Formats: sequence, C-alpha cells, structure tokens
Amino acid sequence: MGVGKELKRVDAYEKVTGGAKYVADLAPKDLLVAKVVHSTIANGVVKSFDLEEALKVPGVVKIVTCFEVPDIQFPTPGHPWSVEAAHQDVSDRKLLNTRVRVYGDDIAAVIADNEIAANRAARLVKVEYEVYEPLLTTDEAMAEGAATLHEEKPGNVLVHSSFQLGDMTYDQALEEEPSLHVIERTYETQTVQHCHLEVPVSYAYMANDKIVVTSSTQIPHIVRRVIGQALGIPWGQIRVIKPYIGGGFGNKQDVLYEPLNAFLCTQVGGRGVRLELTREETLACTRVRHAIKFHVKGAVRDDGTLVARKFEAYSNQGGYASHGHAIVANAANGFKQLYHEEKALESDSYTVYTNITVGGAMRGYGIPQSDFAAECLAEDLANAIGMDPLEFRFKNCMPEGYVDPHTKVKFNSYGLKKCMEKGRDYINWDEKRKEYADQTGPVRRGVGMAIFCYKTGVYPISLETASCRMILNQDGSIQLQMGATEIGQGADTVFTQMAAEVTGITEDRIYIVSTQDTDISPFDTGAYASRQTYVSGKALKQTAQLLKERILDYASYLLKMPADVLDIEENNVVDKESRECLVTLEALATEAFYSLDRSVHITAESTYHCKENTFSSGACFAEIEVDIPLGKIKVLNIINVHDSGTLINPKLAEAQVHGGMSMGLGYALSEQLLFDKSGRPLNDNLLDYKLPTAMDTPDLHVDFVQLDDPTGPFGNKALGEPPAIPVAPAIRNALLHATGVAVDSLPLDPQKLVSHFKEAGLI
Amino acid sequence: MGVGKELKRVDAYEKVTGGAKYVADLAPKDLLVAKVVHSTIANGVVKSFDLEEALKVPGVVKIVTCFEVPDIQFPTPGHPWSVEAAHQDVSDRKLLNTRVRVYGDDIAAVIADNEIAANRAARLVKVEYEVYEPLLTTDEAMAEGAATLHEEKPGNVLVHSSFQLGDMTYDQALEEEPSLHVIERTYETQTVQHCHLEVPVSYAYMANDKIVVTSSTQIPHIVRRVIGQALGIPWGQIRVIKPYIGGGFGNKQDVLYEPLNAFLCTQVGGRGVRLELTREETLACTRVRHAIKFHVKGAVRDDGTLVARKFEAYSNQGGYASHGHAIVANAANGFKQLYHEEKALESDSYTVYTNITVGGAMRGYGIPQSDFAAECLAEDLANAIGMDPLEFRFKNCMPEGYVDPHTKVKFNSYGLKKCMEKGRDYINWDEKRKEYADQTGPVRRGVGMAIFCYKTGVYPISLETASCRMILNQDGSIQLQMGATEIGQGADTVFTQMAAEVTGITEDRIYIVSTQDTDISPFDTGAYASRQTYVSGKALKQTAQLLKERILDYASYLLKMPADVLDIEENNVVDKESRECLVTLEALATEAFYSLDRSVHITAESTYHCKENTFSSGACFAEIEVDIPLGKIKVLNIINVHDSGTLINPKLAEAQVHGGMSMGLGYALSEQLLFDKSGRPLNDNLLDYKLPTAMDTPDLHVDFVQLDDPTGPFGNKALGEPPAIPVAPAIRNALLHATGVAVDSLPLDPQKLVSHFKEAGLI
Repeated sequence: MGVGKELKRVDAYEKVTGGAKYVADLAPKDLLVAKVVHSTIANGVVKSFDLEEALKVPGVVKIVTCFEVPDIQFPTPGHPWSVEAAHQDVSDRKLLNTRVRVYGDDIAAVIADNEIAANRAARLVKVEYEVYEPLLTTDEAMAEGAATLHEEKPGNVLVHSSFQLGDMTYDQALEEEPSLHVIERTYETQTVQHCHLEVPVSYAYMANDKIVVTSSTQIPHIVRRVIGQALGIPWGQIRVIKPYIGGGFGNKQDVLYEPLNAFLCTQVGGRGVRLELTREETLACTRVRHAIKFHVKGAVRDDGTLVARKFEAYSNQGGYASHGHAIVANAANGFKQLYHEEKALESDSYTVYTNITVGGAMRGYGIPQSDFAAECLAEDLANAIGMDPLEFRFKNCMPEGYVDPHTKVKFNSYGLKKCMEKGRDYINWDEKRKEYADQTGPVRRGVGMAIFCYKTGVYPISLETASCRMILNQDGSIQLQMGATEIGQGADTVFTQMAAEVTGITEDRIYIVSTQDTDISPFDTGAYASRQTYVSGKALKQTAQLLKERILDYASYLLKMPADVLDIEENNVVDKESRECLVTLEALATEAFYSLDRSVHITAESTYHCKENTFSSGACFAEIEVDIPLGKIKVLNIINVHDSGTLINPKLAEAQVHGGMSMGLGYALSEQLLFDKSGRPLNDNLLDYKLPTAMDTPDLHVDFVQLDDPTGPFGNKALGEPPAIPVAPAIRNALLHATGVAVDSLPLDPQKLVSHFKEAGLI
Repeated sequence: MGVGKELKRVDAYEKVTGGAKYVADLAPKDLLVAKVVHSTIANGVVKSFDLEEALKVPGVVKIVTCFEVPDIQFPTPGHPWSVEAAHQDVSDRKLLNTRVRVYGDDIAAVIADNEIAANRAARLVKVEYEVYEPLLTTDEAMAEGAATLHEEKPGNVLVHSSFQLGDMTYDQALEEEPSLHVIERTYETQTVQHCHLEVPVSYAYMANDKIVVTSSTQIPHIVRRVIGQALGIPWGQIRVIKPYIGGGFGNKQDVLYEPLNAFLCTQVGGRGVRLELTREETLACTRVRHAIKFHVKGAVRDDGTLVARKFEAYSNQGGYASHGHAIVANAANGFKQLYHEEKALESDSYTVYTNITVGGAMRGYGIPQSDFAAECLAEDLANAIGMDPLEFRFKNCMPEGYVDPHTKVKFNSYGLKKCMEKGRDYINWDEKRKEYADQTGPVRRGVGMAIFCYKTGVYPISLETASCRMILNQDGSIQLQMGATEIGQGADTVFTQMAAEVTGITEDRIYIVSTQDTDISPFDTGAYASRQTYVSGKALKQTAQLLKERILDYASYLLKMPADVLDIEENNVVDKESRECLVTLEALATEAFYSLDRSVHITAESTYHCKENTFSSGACFAEIEVDIPLGKIKVLNIINVHDSGTLINPKLAEAQVHGGMSMGLGYALSEQLLFDKSGRPLNDNLLDYKLPTAMDTPDLHVDFVQLDDPTGPFGNKALGEPPAIPVAPAIRNALLHATGVAVDSLPLDPQKLVSHFKEAGLI
C-alpha cells in the first residue's frame, strides 16, 4: 500500500473507455461559437476594419475588434503572482491587439450561433494595416535601426542578464594558462511546439455575477487571476473549472485564450461562448519552445579538468513576453549547474522580441536548449583532448552536495554518477566506443551520451505554495481534493498513493477529485516545473496527517483510549503496538457522522508553504546507426537513467520517462516550426510538422537510481520534465562518434545531415 | 449589512433570465432515457413478463424487471441515518417490486436511446399478475381478514403509538366533572400532492468507480446514503449532485427514483441514463400528504377552561412506509403542543398500510392535518359554551415557557399571543364577529381563525448536524459552501446575509456555492423540518467566526498588532475601538496568498451538532363570503401572523408565508387526489387536480412578531413550513361563523358544501 507501489492509474478505465469528461464533453448544448480573426502580417498596425460582409453572414451575433477591448495590458505566463511589482510578469498585450507583432496576432473575434457562420464571417472580416518589416531572428531584431516592437523596450531586448562565477573572467583564465585546450562554438536549437492532442479549448458564461470559464489548462487558479487582470475585474468574480485535459506540456501553463473567451461572453449578455482553436492556430498562435542561439566557449587542461566556460544565449522570444526571460535565465542556470569550472564561468543571456510565434513554457523550461549547448560543448572539449566523454563527465560534473551559489538549491540527494554508471553498463559503453572507433562505409554506428540536472519546482525564484483538503465518508473512504492538477502525467494516481501511505486508508477507498474548480478547490498554482509531487505532495502529506489525527481523536473518544496508542492500518483503527483491529474506519466514520453525542464531519485542509528545493539528475545513452548517403539516423538502443529520488509509482515514472524521451527524439531528429520571410508559419499542421509517430520511435529503455531525498515528502523529487532534456545532445554526440561530424544545431534531419556530410567529404 | 436586511435574492437574476441551471440544463447530450413500467393493479403479485414486443422497438437498449434487481429492501425517507437499528427507517421496498402494493408500483424499467422508444416499449411490456382486492382506506386495511400488504406487518398497522398526559384518563376526567361540556367529532383531511413545478428528474453515470447522480432533491447527502443501501454498495462509491431545483415541499425529501436511476446506469456499463417522471407519474407514484382520520374528543368547563382531550388518528400510509409513522407521531405532538389541558390528554395514533399512493413528507409534516383537528375541536368547544373562539384560545393555548413533556422542546421565545392580537386587530375580529352573527340570505360572511405552533428542526427526535466551509479569495471576497440546500425558499440568500453579519464582508462579496456535490460539499442532512436557518445557520455562524479569527490572525501578523484589538467592517480590517481602516481585506488576502514569508490560503470549515430546539407559532385570520346555493367560498381577507423570531430577510420571509398560505388555501378549498375503486388515481394531472391558480388566490397579508429567540443563531427559528398550517382550519371556522354549518372534512369544495348546506336546510 502507498508509496512505491505500481498502482494502476486511477483514471485508466475512464480514459480508455471514453468515459472521462474533457471540456468538449462538458460543453452545454446551446453555446455560441467564437472565432478569432488573426492578422495576416507579422509586424504592423491595424488601421481599420470593414465588417460589412462579415456581419451579413446568417448566424453572426457580434463582432468585437481590437478597438473595442479594455485598454489593459496583461501578462499571460502561469507564474505565481507576486505582490511586488518588480517581480510581476510583463504585461505587454491586450485581449485583442491593434499593434500587430506576430503573424496571426489576435485582432478581432466573431461570435456566431454556429461554427460554420463564425468561420465564414471571420474570413470575411476585411482589415487595413500599416505594414512594417518583419523581424524574424534575434540578429535582425537586435540590429541597429530595427523597428521597436514594444515601446517599453526600444532595441527589442526584453531582458539582458549576466553573472560571473570564480575569481576571474573567462579570458583571464585563458591568459593565466595558455596551455589550455579551448573550444568556441555556436550551438543552436530550433522552434518546436508541444503538439498536445487536445487543442486549447474553453467555454465561458456568466452566472450569479461570476464569469465561469471551463478550460483545458494546467493552471486553473492562475487563469482565474489573469482573467481578472485582463478584464480589470476583481478576481473573486471569476470561476475557472478544469476537467481532464488532453496534454499541456507547458503550453497550457500560459493563459492563452481564456481572458478573451471570458470577455466575449460579457459582450453577449453573459451567454455561453465556446472558443476552440484549430490545430493550425495552435501551432501558429499559442506558444513554442524558444529557439536559442548559444555562443559558448570552454577551456580544459590536458588531464580533462574543466577550467573555464563562457555562455552567451540569444533567445528568440517572438512577439510577446509570455514566460519571457524566465526561460533563458533558467537555461543559463542549467548550464551553470551541470559542471564545475575550476576558475571561471561567465554568462550572458538575452531575451529578444521578434515577430515569430511567441516562445513560452515547454517541458524543461529552457534546459533542453542549454543542455544541448552544455553537452555538445562537454563532448567537444573531451574530444579536443582525446578523453573519453563519459570519463570527462565523471570528472567534471557537479559533485555531491553541490549548492547553487545564486539560488542555494542543493543536491540534497545525489544519484547522477550512479545514473551514468547504470547507463554505461546498459549500453556497453566502453566496448561500443572501441568497436565503433574506426568505421568506414556508408552506414556507421556510434554511441553518445548526455547528462542533465534539474531543480524541483520554482523555489526560491518564485513562491511555492499548495493546499489540500480531505473529506471522510461514512464508509471510511475519503475524497482527496488537490489544487494541483492532473494533466495526463498521472498526478491523481500518485496523490492517491501518497494519501494511502499517510492515512492507512487503502487506495481503493481514496477518491481523488480530479476536476479543479477555483470556487471550491484548495489553492495551488498548478502543474508545471515538475513541482507537484514535491510541493503539492508536502501539502498532501501534512493534510493527511491532520486527517489521521482527527480520525484518531474520534477513535480515542469512541474507544476511550488515548489517541497516541492508536494507528490506522488497512482501513482499521489498530492498537499501535499489537496492530490488533479496534474498530473499522467504516464503523468509526458512520458513528462520527451520526452520533447523537458527538457528531462531526471529519475533514482536513491545510496550506504548505514550501521553502526548500533539491536537484534531480540523470543521463541519456544512445546507440545509433547513421545512413550517410540518406542522412538518416536510426536509434538502435536508447536509455534514460534518472535520479528522481524515491519513486511514488515506478510504472508511472517509467511511462513519464517514455513520454519525455519520445519528445526528446522529435526534438533531436525531426521537429521544427518553420517561418517564411513574412513571418508566416510554413508548416503549422501535423502533416508538415514532423512529429515522430509510433513508427518512428524505437524501444525506449528506462532505469532509475532511487535514493531517498531528505527534503521530498516521500523521498521524491522532480521527474515530469527531465526525461525530455538529455536525448537530443546524446544523439548529436552519438552522431559525432559514428561519423566524426559535429552538427551543432537541431534538428538532425536528413537535409541538414546530408549537407554536413558533404561538407565533411563523407559523400 | 447582514441580518434583518431585505437583500435581493442572490439567485434572482439568474432565475428570472433563465440562466440558472437545473438538472435538465446540465444533462449531457448523449444520455440514454429510462422509463418506468408501472403496475396497472394496486394490490397483487407480478407473475411474469412478456417483453417480446417491447424489445422489438428500435432504440431499446435494455429492459430490467423486478425479477432482476438486488434482493435488498431499503427505506426512502429523508431522515438522518441512525446508527441504532431500532431508529432506522422502515425498509419495505426494492428497486422494482414483485409484490405490488400501489396502483402504479414500479415493476420494470426500459432503457432506450430516446424518449419515444422508451415510452413505446414501456407501453408494450406485457405483465401477468395475481390480483388481490385493493385496500383503499384505513378502515378497509384494518378490517378483520384484510390481506396483509407487508409480511412483516400482519394486520397492516405499521405502528400504533400512544401516550397519556395528566393524572387520569380522559374518561376519568369526565367522570370526575359531569358538568363538563363535551365535544366528540371525526375530522378528516384528504390526500393532496405537493405539485412542485419541476417533476422528479435525475441522471446517473459511472466515473472512476463512482456512480454519479445529478438529481432534483432537497437532500443530496441522504440520497447518497439511500442509493448505497438500495444497491448494497459502500456509500462512498456514490456521488450526488444537486443543482437548482424547481420546488420540493417535502416530496424531494424522499429518495424517490435516484436509486433506480443509479442501478440502471450500472446495467448499461455505466453509460449515462436519464430518468424523468411525467406529471402523471409524479401525482400517482411519488408521495402525497397523508389523509388522516381523527376521532377527537374535548371537555370544557363553563368558564372555558379546557379540562381534557382525547386524540385518535388513523393515517392512510399507502403502499410503502416512506416517512411513515414519523408523520402521524408529529401530528399527535402538534395536537398536544397547542393547548394545555387541566386534567387529561390521551393520544392514540395508527399508521396503516393501504394500496393508495404513498404518504410522505409534505410542508408541515402531519401538523396541517392535526392542526385542522385541533382547531376545529377548539372552535367547536368554544361554540359549545358560547365563548368567543379567540378568547378560548387566549385562555387555553400553551403558555409562555411551555416545555414539551416528551421532547423537552421549549418556547424559548414566545410570540403566540401577540400574533393573535395582531391578527385580531387586522381583521377587526370583535366587530366582524358581531356584524356577521345573524345573517340570512344566500350570501353570508364570516370570520374565523386558527393558531399553530411548530418546532424548529428535528432535535431531539433525530440528529441535527450541519457543516459549512468558507474560502477567502484574493480580492477579499469569499465563497460560502453549505451542505444545506436552496430549494426555492431563499436559503442561499439568507445564508449570504448571515455570513456578512458575522464576517464583516459585504454581501456583494460573498459568493454562495449553490450546488451541493456530496463529494466536496460540507455534510448536511438537507432542506426539511424548517431547520436550515436554525441548525445550518449555527454551523454557518460558527464557521464564519472561525474564518474571521483566521483573517484577524493574519492581520495581526501583517500589522504587528494583537488580533484582539482588530475587527472587520465593510471589507476592511479596522481598529476595534476607533473603527479606523488598517488594511483592506483585499490587500490582506492577496498578501496571505502570495506572501514569500507566510503564504496561507485562508479557509474555515466546521460541524455544528445542534442539541437545542424551540417553538415557532402564529395564527391565521380569515374573512370569507359564502355563496350558499353555489357552495362557493370567496376569501375576502386573510392574514397570517408569525412568530419566527428575528427575521433574517423580512421580504423573503413574507414571500415564504405567501407561498405557504397559497398552499393552505388549496388544501382548504379545492385540492384532493382521488382514487377509483381499483386504487387508480382519478385526477393525476393538473387539469383535474384542482390546484389554485393566481386567479383563485386573494391578496395575502402577512405580519410578524419579531422576538429574538435566545437559541437561534441570529434570534431566528422555524419559518419554512408553518405558513401552510393554520389556513384550512381558519377558513373552516369562518365558514362555521358565516353559516352555522360545521364541515369536518377537507377540502371545502362546492360539492361538499352544497351537500352540507342541504343537510342543514340552508338550501
């Protein structure tokens, strides 16, 4: 019972049979339909609309344009609110924008009584623009004379941040030791999208002075707050309901279209309005993983000691700030936290507004990008001195007990080297490195690896706070209400196990309330930053202890025994010593409800304010086969080994790693959202955007190093995001091993490989 | 702010505009439809079914018969559960019954994918019965040799209970004082139905191992329990959701069709099934107000002193126990509690199974019946000695400080005599009594009156327990979650006012969660027995105090001031003495949520176990005009004067009295559910069942005597049911005054009056 058990997902049956209710299942019959009118330029200003033809479409109820929305700029990212203005997110967009900064910017919305009318009318809205040159890259946007996209940020740099560690600069370190081997390279990651199965969808109506929004989101409580900000109304007047959702991966950690949906329902007298994006809109108009260009340098001694590194990152933010600089700042931290430099680390990060699709949160939050840079650099440094790259990492990776000098986040438990050992053994590293050393011919093989580390939640950068409520039923079962959200990752299942672990009530009698409703659910900031099993888990543990105390207090009254000699085990109140059953929980609960002497409905609710953090870590090892003439990589064998502390549910943990590895493979090999010169997305659909299918995916192997983390509520720490991080650099490094060709940008697709192989003289 | 204010109903706008969601509005699109097959005999046994034709109807999914349901008998009444078997309700029916005891008994159910198919198939189900003689009256059912309807109760008497007060029997009192004036009469009340606007409707489906039932009920937590009992599954596996409902009046304090609906969804793999009754089914197959025959006797001295009374009641229970004997026991208590006898009170009550529609809870719970008996008797006793009937009541009614000898319920506040004074003055009693004393001619006028008293909730007969939860939002507003239910009576509005009163938060910032969901709502037994403002109000008051304490505790931390010098007023934390604003609740709440030092999501939840009760009381005065040849009564003027303690919302209180008086007028003048010899309802539709319309209803006058009740949470006590009680006897007594004709049964409809007037020689 409880933690460590491979409990079947509590939502498995419903999800498999179609019983689980998503937004579309819950939508009432009589909703109006809204359709957003998107700009057909990437940079410019809306001058005027001609709505005549659009308004003639039968079924059109109302058209709202960017000239009619509240003059309020609001932020969209799913961060905890800060009471200090300096720490609040950037407010740089309105519900509908007159100043267009993205191809597909939201400039008007049609409300109609059916989908077809809404679509037709949206197409018939005529727009007059003042058109500016689109700025698609960070270089273009930072170039002298480039147009300013947001008045508040002349020069288009949203934030530039830098830090330096060690007693000297990178250059001083090089001066001091001229014998150092130096690598200077530019590594680049591409724009990719989350491609969750369920597109963003919500519906909104007014009831009893509240705007009720049901949405597919990871962060219902934050959606509530941002709607309040965007509409300029008190937050208590908004109610957000989150049912099951079909994936999020960070895209639903942005408050995308809920504020507009809420506003639109107020424009039709509070009637229900549905706003569902198409796949094309989802790819072009929601959020993407930032393309980041890294200029990095590293210096290493003959013996493999890493002496100094320098990190420069240019993050392509797109048209609006969204999670903005938090992501490239996190990327810089990730670069920093991976290796120890003997002398110097310099870091400069720039987040740059451009006119492409907006970058936001996506599984790993900047770390998949910086891990690519860090792990390409590590590989290239090891190669430069002829050292085994795994040995290089054993030598230079962050040591046990490492404390981040800025955030003070610590490796409270440390399994990184054990992960590397397990991966090495699994892939037959030493043997394969030798075996594939000197190949010729068109088809060659290689092994590569990469490591990562990843913090757990956002403390101390941001607030970590979570609440939980539990309700005892008459039959001794309980409801478990979390503010934390199930987004497909299995949160509901592991929370159920945690509750069983603490209360002594078996999982079959624990009913988690999967839907969050901001009017009644405990508060929690939501599913992101791999925080929930750690932070929300602490709230759960504390609340479960409180519930247990209250049950034992009632048992003490019933049994006329002191509470401290009692315990709960398998749904019975037992003698703590003998473990003998004294009363069933069912009998106790029924008595507590209906006692004529002392009736009490036992519940517990509490907040946990988390002021701790810890690092997870791990490694990916991949063996690949490269068809040089075709430029095609085939993954023969791949394993992720993770140190995520104690696993609450090993089977679900494995599934989580599978999902992340699959995402990592798409990132490594095929995915990229492309834009034409005007800033229009070229492949904003799942035919042209090359998401790997089941046919493209090799067998995925997973292993864990389970070390109890002393700060985790159950010895656990971050697991959700990390699996996506190390796959791409591991494959890039395997490619280097197989062919001797270092490809420094993602994805490693055939077109790019063929061109590199040609350059290298392999074909 | 708060208590005593005429706040507009919090649900007014939504209900007027059609925005409020009822069961039918919430029902998903893809529900299957169930239709119950009812017996076409009133007494007998189902021998077999022929389903061949029914199963051929396209769209039929499944037919379940009484031979296929669990072999479990369960109770239906909405009483708090008792852990003592002796106090549990009578379990005498199954989900579908083989032994038929009512015309229209539930014997099978059709599930189809549309309403038309379900109805067609239900009509095509062929049934073979063994038919017994129907027993329609208590006399028939108690007659020697009558067939036994329930094996457990040979002789068909469900319960016979009796008590005696005073030092002697009624007969001994008469023997002791042969000069006493004696009245012996039989008073009879008829079968009526609640006629709530919304018929019983529910839908059920399975999700994550739970059966989820959304139902129009007054008692969601009890519905959950009874479904568990009926299906033989743990109660925690059932979730009941109660949205707005279109009236209940006690009929929805019985667990009518929810268990069958829950069972049916389990028979189609957990798919959603809707079960909605027709109006005809509602009248014939749900619950009615018990017809009761009273044999009563009274003895009075020349000076008007009431010396002794004897009460004998035969309650026509119909085919199943439902609320059964609790109602006639309450009736007997009501008879007892109204007058003080100098020497003796004897009481015998019989609840008798028959084959008519089942009697259950209805506004007043037996008291409208016994008040008719008590107030006819009082009138007839007064007349017998030539005493003014109002004077008789002033002289003999229960005195201030009366304590019920059985229940110990007390008049903790006492406004009965003041109510009589107010009514007397309003109607010009003394003048009109004289003016109408000696009339002749076909149209005559009269004034009559009746008093009542009524306890508040069910303590100590049953458990009184209630919980409440409150949640502070970031803007300083709160959600208020009650287990107690809004059933049209205005509960949500008065709870909002109570919360404002205690917390210092204004009503516009208090959002009551109107929907109850047994998975997450606090526990409460529900809306019945005029208990909620009193019992649930105490839970609310206690919880609001707790919330306020927690807010002030946080304020104390923020302001660095002791909590006991702080208070909350109009959404601000103020200095208790100077009333100066120290911090707005909005600023405090936002800080509490997002503080990096001390983040806490302030909520409060608590149970109140109520071990008190008190009496409400009041009087009705009516002036009528009787058209003797037409047998028609016209109500010229009518007033109810109530002592319900402090009124939370005088305007809503008045509306509540209006509704009750209107129900009383139907009871007095026109309503009666009739049965033919076979037990088949004759007028089970709203054309033939004579519910008064707006055109039939005179102006209704209401007044109150507001005395603070020291046991009420805000000085308040019962108000919901009492208004319906005294109207019928007041009109019967006015008729007696106008015509000299004492009609001893209800309703006072033209047919009956003409026959009485003929008998009396008036026509």
